[in-house]
Amino acid sequence: MKKEDIKKVILAYSGGLDTSIIIPWLKENYNNCEVVAVSADVGQESELDGLEEKAIATGASKLYILDLKDEFVEDYIYPCMKANAVYEGVYLLGTAFARPLIGQKLVEIALKEGADAICHGCTGKGNDQVRFELAIKAFAPDMPIIAPWREWDIKSRDEEIDYAESHNIPLKINRETNYSKDKNLWHLSHEGLDLEDPMNEPMYDKILEMGVTPEKAPDTPTYITLTFEKGIPVALNGEKLGGQAMVKKLNEIGGANGIGIIDMVENRLVGMKSRGVYETPGGTILYKAHELLETICLDKATQHYKQGVAQKFGELLYDGQWFTPLREALSAFVDKTSETVTGEVKLKLYKGNIIPAGMNSPYTLYSEQIASFGEDDSYDQNDSAGFINLYGLPIKVKAQMDAKTKK
Amino acid sequence: MKKEDIKKVILAYSGGLDTSIIIPWLKENYNNCEVVAVSADVGQESELDGLEEKAIATGASKLYILDLKDEFVEDYIYPCMKANAVYEGVYLLGTAFARPLIGQKLVEIALKEGADAICHGCTGKGNDQVRFELAIKAFAPDMPIIAPWREWDIKSRDEEIDYAESHNIPLKINRETNYSKDKNLWHLSHEGLDLEDPMNEPMYDKILEMGVTPEKAPDTPTYITLTFEKGIPVALNGEKLGGQAMVKKLNEIGGANGIGIIDMVENRLVGMKSRGVYETPGGTILYKAHELLETICLDKATQHYKQGVAQKFGELLYDGQWFTPLREALSAFVDKTSETVTGEVKLKLYKGNIIPAGMNSPYTLYSEQIASFGEDDSYDQNDSAGFINLYGLPIKVKAQMDAKTKK
Amino acid sequence: MKKEDIKKVILAYSGGLDTSIIIPWLKENYNNCEVVAVSADVGQESELDGLEEKAIATGASKLYILDLKDEFVEDYIYPCMKANAVYEGVYLLGTAFARPLIGQKLVEIALKEGADAICHGCTGKGNDQVRFELAIKAFAPDMPIIAPWREWDIKSRDEEIDYAESHNIPLKINRETNYSKDKNLWHLSHEGLDLEDPMNEPMYDKILEMGVTPEKAPDTPTYITLTFEKGIPVALNGEKLGGQAMVKKLNEIGGANGIGIIDMVENRLVGMKSRGVYETPGGTILYKAHELLETICLDKATQHYKQGVAQKFGELLYDGQWFTPLREALSAFVDKTSETVTGEVKLKLYKGNIIPAGMNSPYTLYSEQIASFGEDDSYDQNDSAGFINLYGLPIKVKAQMDAKTKK
Amino acid sequence: MKKEDIKKVILAYSGGLDTSIIIPWLKENYNNCEVVAVSADVGQESELDGLEEKAIATGASKLYILDLKDEFVEDYIYPCMKANAVYEGVYLLGTAFARPLIGQKLVEIALKEGADAICHGCTGKGNDQVRFELAIKAFAPDMPIIAPWREWDIKSRDEEIDYAESHNIPLKINRETNYSKDKNLWHLSHEGLDLEDPMNEPMYDKILEMGVTPEKAPDTPTYITLTFEKGIPVALNGEKLGGQAMVKKLNEIGGANGIGIIDMVENRLVGMKSRGVYETPGGTILYKAHELLETICLDKATQHYKQGVAQKFGELLYDGQWFTPLREALSAFVDKTSETVTGEVKLKLYKGNIIPAGMNSPYTLYSEQIASFGEDDSYDQNDSAGFINLYGLPIKVKAQMDAKTKK
Repeated sequence: MKKEDIKKVILAYSGGLDTSIIIPWLKENYNNCEVVAVSADVGQESELDGLEEKAIATGASKLYILDLKDEFVEDYIYPCMKANAVYEGVYLLGTAFARPLIGQKLVEIALKEGADAICHGCTGKGNDQVRFELAIKAFAPDMPIIAPWREWDIKSRDEEIDYAESHNIPLKINRETNYSKDKNLWHLSHEGLDLEDPMNEPMYDKILEMGVTPEKAPDTPTYITLTFEKGIPVALNGEKLGGQAMVKKLNEIGGANGIGIIDMVENRLVGMKSRGVYETPGGTILYKAHELLETICLDKATQHYKQGVAQKFGELLYDGQWFTPLREALSAFVDKTSETVTGEVKLKLYKGNIIPAGMNSPYTLYSEQIASFGEDDSYDQNDSAGFINLYGLPIKVKAQMDAKTKK
Repeated sequence: MKKEDIKKVILAYSGGLDTSIIIPWLKENYNNCEVVAVSADVGQESELDGLEEKAIATGASKLYILDLKDEFVEDYIYPCMKANAVYEGVYLLGTAFARPLIGQKLVEIALKEGADAICHGCTGKGNDQVRFELAIKAFAPDMPIIAPWREWDIKSRDEEIDYAESHNIPLKINRETNYSKDKNLWHLSHEGLDLEDPMNEPMYDKILEMGVTPEKAPDTPTYITLTFEKGIPVALNGEKLGGQAMVKKLNEIGGANGIGIIDMVENRLVGMKSRGVYETPGGTILYKAHELLETICLDKATQHYKQGVAQKFGELLYDGQWFTPLREALSAFVDKTSETVTGEVKLKLYKGNIIPAGMNSPYTLYSEQIASFGEDDSYDQNDSAGFINLYGLPIKVKAQMDAKTKK
Repeated sequence: MKKEDIKKVILAYSGGLDTSIIIPWLKENYNNCEVVAVSADVGQESELDGLEEKAIATGASKLYILDLKDEFVEDYIYPCMKANAVYEGVYLLGTAFARPLIGQKLVEIALKEGADAICHGCTGKGNDQVRFELAIKAFAPDMPIIAPWREWDIKSRDEEIDYAESHNIPLKINRETNYSKDKNLWHLSHEGLDLEDPMNEPMYDKILEMGVTPEKAPDTPTYITLTFEKGIPVALNGEKLGGQAMVKKLNEIGGANGIGIIDMVENRLVGMKSRGVYETPGGTILYKAHELLETICLDKATQHYKQGVAQKFGELLYDGQWFTPLREALSAFVDKTSETVTGEVKLKLYKGNIIPAGMNSPYTLYSEQIASFGEDDSYDQNDSAGFINLYGLPIKVKAQMDAKTKK
Repeated sequence: MKKEDIKKVILAYSGGLDTSIIIPWLKENYNNCEVVAVSADVGQESELDGLEEKAIATGASKLYILDLKDEFVEDYIYPCMKANAVYEGVYLLGTAFARPLIGQKLVEIALKEGADAICHGCTGKGNDQVRFELAIKAFAPDMPIIAPWREWDIKSRDEEIDYAESHNIPLKINRETNYSKDKNLWHLSHEGLDLEDPMNEPMYDKILEMGVTPEKAPDTPTYITLTFEKGIPVALNGEKLGGQAMVKKLNEIGGANGIGIIDMVENRLVGMKSRGVYETPGGTILYKAHELLETICLDKATQHYKQGVAQKFGELLYDGQWFTPLREALSAFVDKTSETVTGEVKLKLYKGNIIPAGMNSPYTLYSEQIASFGEDDSYDQNDSAGFINLYGLPIKVKAQMDAKTKK
C-alpha cells in the first residue's frame, strides 16, 4: 500500500506525551488521515477520565478503551507462570506479556474499522516494536504498520515537548527528565538516566512505586497460603480470587514486604544489552509458590526437562513469539504437566525474602517413608549396589580402557 | 575377589558414630582384616585432635588425615561456579562437590597401601554412595567396595549405639536424635526428623549453624566488592584471597546477614524425593556475583546456551559424574566462555538479600550509548523495520496460509 | 511378598526355548505354582498353531493369545513416528515399541487372574527387562516380578537345551547357534555371534529376512506416494490403509528395494555398548516421508525445537519410560505440532535409497514467490540490511570491545 | 561514513555475471571509486586464467587471487565435521563453510589497502549476505558494506545482461536461464527454476556435476578405509592425505558411487523456506565415517549430549555465527570430546549407500565380553534387578499415588 492511500489509522494510544503528538504527526504526514485511538487497560492505572476528550482534542476521531485486565492475567500471565517462563533467569516478562494481547486487539479494531494501517509509539531500539508488530502480522499479515519513532526527526524528549507545544497539545508535563517506565497489573519497569551505567546502584527510594525496599518493609513477617489447581492459583489464604484480584492483592502484600525488585542487565531482542529495574511483587510470589509446588507434584524427569522448556518459553515470550506454533505446542506440553500441580503452599514473606513454610498436594510424589533413612518396604537398600554397578559401568569400562591405552 | 580374600580395607573415616562402628564390624565380618582409616578434611571442622587415637582404639591400624581444603575449593567448587552449576534451580551442590575428591584420594591411598577393598559409611538410600563409588571406579575400576549399610542388619541410630556399646566403643553421643548433617567448607546440610514432612516449616533457630535467619541479621546492610579474573573470584574488597580464605570470609559475612538458606524438596539420583535445608552463605554470594558479572561479559547467545550447560553440569555433579568425558568437555566449554569474565561486582547484603550495587568489566559488552534511547552512531533505528520484517516473515507466511486454509 | 506365597504366575510366553523351560523351572522353584502363559502377537509371525498345546504340555495351566497388532501400530509406533523419535540418530526403536504394550497387557491379565507375580524371559544384560518391568510397575507398582535369567544357574544356550531335554520338553531346536533375534510387525533385530566384533562386516545374505540387500534389489526404481493426515499415514498410492496394513505393505515394498537395514553400535540403558543389525523396511520409509512433509508444514522454530524433542522422545522410549508424565507431555507437544502435518509425499525407492520425488500440503509454509530470487511483494530486499545490522550487533559490539582491550 | 567519502572499495569477485557488472556499477554510483577485486579460491574450479585481465577490463584497479583451499578444509570443515554439525538433519553446510573464511580475508585486504568499504554480490534474500557481513563485522565492526542487490534497480538476470551489454562487458553468457549454483571443494548447490516447486522431482541428469545418480553408479561396490586421529581424517586406504587431497579424492569416489545427493526444503536465516539440491559426495562419506567411529569411542552421555551440540553448531554455522564466543566455546567442547576419536572405519560404497563394514579404535569403549549375552566377570546380571528397582522408583511412586488419588 502506498503512503498516499492510507486514509485511516489505528493508533495504540496511552494519552502520554509520545502518543499524543503522534496524532497530529500522523495527520500531517499521512494526508490528514483519520486517526482512531485505542487505549488498552492492562492495569497500568493511568487516568482514563478525560482520556476521550484528550484524544479528540489532539485530533483523533474516536477513542476505544478496552479493559483487558482479566484476559491479560488469565490468558497470558498464568500460562507463562505454569511454564515457569523467565527471561535470563530473573526477568518475569512484565512488559512482554502485554504486547501480544494489545497487538491482537488493535487488529480486531482495525478490521472492524476498515483501517489502512496500525500505528504504535514504540522506539526503534526496543523490544516492544517487535512484539507489537509480530502480533499484528499474526492476524493481519499484510497490514501496513507505522512506527513514527523510526520515521520522524524527533530525537529526544525535549524535541517531543517542542513539537507538542508548537501544535498546541496541552500536556501536564515539564521538561524534567524521568525514567522510562512501563506499567501494568503485573509489573513496573524503569530504564534510563543513571540506570544506564551498570556501575550505579539504583536510587530505589526515588524509583519504587509498587512497594518498598526490604529495609523499609515491616520487621514482622507476613505468612500467606496459596492454593493452586492444575498450576493455576485459585485462592489466597483460603479465599477464592480470580486472576486480576489475585495479582492485585499479592502486589499489595509483596510490595509491602519489599519483594520482587530486580536490577538486571538483559539482552534485548534487537541486539544490545540494556539495564532495567523491575518491580513485580505479586508475580514474584506466584512464580515462587508455583515452582515450590511443582517440586512435590512433578517427577524428576519432567521437572528437569521442564527447566529447558521454561527457558525457551521465556525467550519466545520475550521475543514476541506468542502467536506461533512453537509457543502453542509448548503450552500443550505445559498444560499436560500441570494436570497434577494442585495443592497448597505456605510462604513467609519478610523484607524481600520469600521463605517456604510448608506445602502439600493430593498428587504429591514425595514419600516420607521412602525418603527417610530408616527402614521401609518400598525400598531395598541392597538394590542400590546393583544400581551403582550398572549406572557406573561406562565409567568402569572407560577406566579399564584408559589403563590399557596408557600402558 | 572373594570376601575371604579381603585382608586390608581402606575406610573413609570421620570419627562419628557410623564410621566408628564400621571398624569393628569390618574386622568381625571380613576375616579380621586390617582397617586403614582415612579422614579427609574438606573444612567440616570436626575435631581432628585425638582422632588418630580414637581410630586406633576402635581397631584401625593407621589413620591418614588429608587436608583437601584448597583442592576442594579450587579444583571442584570454582570450576562448578564458573559453570553456574546448580541442581534443580536452587541447590548449590555442597555435598556433591566433596565426594569425587575424597573418592579419588581413597583410591590413591588404597593403591599405595595395597588394600583389597574400599569401604564407606554411606547409606543405601542416598546419593553419596553413588558419588563415592563412581569416583572409585574411575580410578580403580575393579576395586571391591564395601558399603556396610547395604550389608548389615543395623537399621537405626539406636541399633548403632547398641552395637557401639556392646563393642566398648566410647562415644560422646546420647540417644537423642538429631538431624542428619553434612558439613564442609562450602555448606552445611540438614535432613531428617521434622523436615521429613514438607508441611513443616523448618525450625531454623534450632537448625542453623553457619549463620542466622534474615530476622536476626543486622538492620544495616553490608556492602562488599568482589573481583573476578576469568570467572574466578580473586579479591574481596580489594584484598587478594585464595579459595579457602575467600569462602571462609564470605561464609562469615553471608552467615551474619542471613544469606544462603535453602529449604527444598529435591530428586535424589536413587529415585526418591527428599527434603533438606542447606546453608551456603558464602557460596550463594559467590554464585550471584559471578552470574551478575556474566550478564555484562558474555554475549546473549553464549549466555542463553550456557543456561542449559549450567543445568547439565549441575546434574552431572549431583549424580557423581565428575570424572567423566562429558563433564570434562563441558568444563572445556566453560573455561572458554570464562576468558572474559573479569571485573568487579559490588553487592549489598541485607537480611537474606543479595542486591546488585554496581559492576564493571574491561570486557563489558554493555554499551551505554547503544542502550540509551537517545541518538547514537552505531545503531540506526530504521534498521529495526527491516529486522522485524525478516524476523516476522514466518509469522506472516503462516498467517497468509491460515487465511487461505480457513476459506 | 515372600517367595513361598507365590502361587500363581503370569508368564510372557513365546513358545521358544527360553520361555518353554521357564515353565518347569518356575514350578520347580516356586512351590509348584500355577503358570498362566500369555502370548502377545505384535506381528512376529511365529507359529500360533499348536502353541496352546505346547504351553500346556510343558506345564502351563492356560494360554492367552493376544492380538495386539493394531494397538501396536496405532498407539505406539505412530505417536513415536510423529515425534520423529529415533535412538542415537539411527535406531527406529522396533524392540522398544513392543515392550510397554505387552507389559501393560500382562498386568491386565495378572489382575484378572489374581496372580501373585509376573515372569519374563529377558536376560539380565539387556534393555527389555527394564522396559517390561517399568511397564509393570506403572500399572501394578507392588507386583513381584520374576526374571529367571537373573536367578537361575543356566548360563548359555547349551545349558538351556540340556535343561529342556532333562525335563522332556520337546523342542524343534538343534544345538547350532543362531543370532539373537527380536521380531515384530515393525522390525527384526539381530545380535550376537560374529556381530559381537564391530570389526566384522555383517553377513547380510545369511542375516536378512525382511528384505534383500541393495545389491539384490531390482534395477528399476519403485515410486510410491504416501498421504498423511495430522502426522499419521492414511493412504499409500491413493489407497486408504489402516496402521497394520500400511506397515505390512511398506515392509514388502521397502524390503524388496533393500531399504531400512541398519548396522550400529548402540548404548544400552544398562550401561554397555552393544552391536546390532536392524531391518525396518517399512518403518524407514514412513519416518522419511513424515520428516520430509514436516519440512514444508512446520515453521523453522518448531522444526528446530522438535529435533531436541525427537531425541528425548527416542531416549524415553528406548529406556522403557513410556508410561511416564514426561512422555505424555511430549506427546501433547507433538500432537499439537502435528495438526498441520497433512499432505502427500512421493518417494522413489531404489536399491537402499529413499529419494524425495515431490511433496505438497494444503498447509505448506513454502512460498515459491518468496523463495525465488526474483521480485516479490512480500519481501523487500532492503529489509535484510536492517536485519543484518541488528542481528550482527552483538558481533559488532564484541569486535569494538576486542579492539579496545587489545590496545 | 557518507557515501561520497567512499573512494576505494574491496569487491568479492568471481568473474561471473553478478560481480562483473558490479564493478562499473560501483564506479558509477560511488564517485568513480577505485575497485580492488578479490577472488577466493575455495575449490570452486572456476577459471582463474585471464581473471585478472577480465577484472581490470571491467574497471578494477587490481585483482587478488587467494588460495584458501587448505584453510577451508582444515580450519572450517574439519572442526565442523568433528562436531557432526549438520543443518536441519541433512544439509552439510557447504556454502555456509566458505563465507566466514572469505569474509575474514576481505577484511585483511581492506585494511591493508586502506579501503573505505567492502562490497559483495549476494542477493537480499539469501543467507550469504548475512554470513559475509557478520564475518566482516567481526574484524572491522565499523567498515561500510555495499550490497548492490539491495540498492540497485536490477531485478533479474535479463536486466543484468542488459546492463552488462550496455557497459560493454564481454560476457560468455547467453540469456538461457540456469540453476543458481554455489560450488567449492566440499559441495555444489543448485537452486531455482523447476526446483522452486517442491512438487517437482529434480532432473538429476541435467543437474548433477560432482557425481552420478545411484542408478548410474557401478554395479560393484567400492570398499574404502578411513583412518582418523582425534576426530580428523588422516588417511584413506592407508595412504596419508592432507585435507584438500582427502576431500578431492573422496569426492571422486563418492561421486562415482552416487553418494551425497540431497534434495531438501530448508529454512533460511532470513525467514523463508527454500528448496535446494546439494551434492556433497566426499563430505557425506567423511561425516558418516566420523559418526560411526564416535559410536565406539564416545561414552553414551557424551554421545547423547553431543547430538544437541551438533545441532547448535550446525545452526551457528548456517547462520554465519562462526566468529562468535559461542561457536568458539562449542569448539572447545568438541575438541575435548575428540581426543579419543582415533581409529579406522571401513565402508562399503554402493549406489548411493554408505554401509558400515567394520571399525576399530585403540580407545574403543565397546567390550565384546560385556556386550555378549554369555557370562562375564565385569557384569553381574543380578545387579540389574537393583538397577531397575531404583530406576523405576519414580514410576512406582507415581503409580501408588495414582491409585490413591483415584479412590
